[in-house]
Amino acid sequence: MKEFELIKEFFTAQPVSRKDVVMGIGDDCALIRANEHKLIAVTTDTLVAGIHFPLDTPPRAIGHKAVAVNLSDIAAMGAEPSWISVAITLPEVNKDWLSEFTAGMFELTEYFNVQLIGGDTTQGPLSITITAQGTVPEDKALCRSGAKNGDYVFVTGDFGDAGLALAAMNNQIELNDSDFATVRAKLDYPKPQVLVGNLIREFATSAIDVSDGLLADLGHICRASTLGIHINVEDIPVSKVMQDNLAQIDAINLALTSGDDYQLIFTVSATNKVGIETAMAHANVEFTCIGQLNPSEEIILSYQNKPFTVSKVGFEHFSAAVAND
Amino acid sequence: MKEFELIKEFFTAQPVSRKDVVMGIGDDCALIRANEHKLIAVTTDTLVAGIHFPLDTPPRAIGHKAVAVNLSDIAAMGAEPSWISVAITLPEVNKDWLSEFTAGMFELTEYFNVQLIGGDTTQGPLSITITAQGTVPEDKALCRSGAKNGDYVFVTGDFGDAGLALAAMNNQIELNDSDFATVRAKLDYPKPQVLVGNLIREFATSAIDVSDGLLADLGHICRASTLGIHINVEDIPVSKVMQDNLAQIDAINLALTSGDDYQLIFTVSATNKVGIETAMAHANVEFTCIGQLNPSEEIILSYQNKPFTVSKVGFEHFSAAVAND
Repeated sequence: MKEFELIKEFFTAQPVSRKDVVMGIGDDCALIRANEHKLIAVTTDTLVAGIHFPLDTPPRAIGHKAVAVNLSDIAAMGAEPSWISVAITLPEVNKDWLSEFTAGMFELTEYFNVQLIGGDTTQGPLSITITAQGTVPEDKALCRSGAKNGDYVFVTGDFGDAGLALAAMNNQIELNDSDFATVRAKLDYPKPQVLVGNLIREFATSAIDVSDGLLADLGHICRASTLGIHINVEDIPVSKVMQDNLAQIDAINLALTSGDDYQLIFTVSATNKVGIETAMAHANVEFTCIGQLNPSEEIILSYQNKPFTVSKVGFEHFSAAVAND
Repeated sequence: MKEFELIKEFFTAQPVSRKDVVMGIGDDCALIRANEHKLIAVTTDTLVAGIHFPLDTPPRAIGHKAVAVNLSDIAAMGAEPSWISVAITLPEVNKDWLSEFTAGMFELTEYFNVQLIGGDTTQGPLSITITAQGTVPEDKALCRSGAKNGDYVFVTGDFGDAGLALAAMNNQIELNDSDFATVRAKLDYPKPQVLVGNLIREFATSAIDVSDGLLADLGHICRASTLGIHINVEDIPVSKVMQDNLAQIDAINLALTSGDDYQLIFTVSATNKVGIETAMAHANVEFTCIGQLNPSEEIILSYQNKPFTVSKVGFEHFSAAVAND
């Protein structure tokens, strides 16, 4: 296991030094100083090679994505990310791979001022487990259960691009090089909506990040809040690449069901709707209002004013490939 | 991945409800309320099947050990464990296995009042990554670098039993059933020295838990504190099973080099030596003073007043089998 000591060198080179970290990497535990006025938000996500990212994913992207999916959960609570611990299992020690992997992690941690405070390295099939922590003022934390009847439902960005990239990689659809590069970047380098999470916590009643798919994650808010929603599926935002390459119905199905988008869904009272729209516009955030919560406890979909049933776009192996708890 | 939802049911049944956990399992993040007068100690350890525990380890023991090795790091900081996040990768969902695994985890978390606040479940080769957190008053945290020249070095318990169990399993030594059961229990169900960690933080200048082997982990304290030590290896405490089954020299070698003991090494100033001995005796803690730190920056070993060199007891595959970062 001696060579695994090398990995620690890569981790120790992490670029952020926070004042609230009393002891970083190198002892039995890290020591952090909590802010008495804030709660600590804690999340853990594992990425397994071949399940949560394609086997040919560049190591830089794996490092980026492992951090991004965790910061996305922090963002969905309205919290500011602060510290991460990384456990990595690797088949062998490869310096070039590790250099790229850590560069991918550190680009994101440096941008968000997140300090790597510890972790573990073991030999085995490639997987990465990160525990990320952040802080949020106690009365501002955005839980799934906070949505109220009549609240408007917003989403950031657009949906389905990561799924389209996987479909192209599985030869289920053909894209030109430029379009493929665009959607593959969305799959490999998701952007956690941390700044949006911090912005909306002043207005929103609930939030969740979209990892499993728009419909599945919207379902989590509805169940936790005992509410339902009626959506005109034409309102679901999709990218130009999606519009250029798929029939509208296929694009909608993909946007609703494919995962790995890492956008936010959040809810806002009627009173705060204009306020949040103004704040989002000022911050140059792309957002869409997709409906309003009702007491039905069901998600009802319409297309051109007729009932709409989700189908799988003929991508049979698709949902397995993007499954991501 | 639907059946993996089942795992969440096992995790949600966790038995502890702490007042400082505002939101437990079930949202994008857990939310915890920090104590402004304490630091938070954070540690992450991964156990991979076949590397950190033998493949035939009962699931109850795997659950116990995954928690124990993390709480051992918390104990080594003098902190009180509070919260854990568990990421588990499993080849398949097996209810009996999960029931035993979680029972093993929860026996220990319940005993130490530790709440499981989240985690992740994925499909793949068996491994468990736990991030454990605890709290410690800022001026009491026990770092490796705190030891001073002249400090006395103490260890809790005895050393080598877990290594002896592995040697017996690898047919490198024969033990009778009763002796094997005794040492196998030490390997499978290590006891994290949390109560000792809390007791000694009032007196000790440094501490570390022994996962890699007594000599290796003592080396970490010496390096971090830029000090050395002279040890008469006859003073290393070993169990009766070790004494009954191994020649003294072999027992000493095993006690110094085999890992998985999860005892504590800690250092105390001459002024506090009697105080800590009294406190440990009152608490019925087994402890041994193995020497005194000096400025040499080397660990020098003697046996019967002659220089002693560590050897591997003829267990060639041994150190690989117990390697544990």
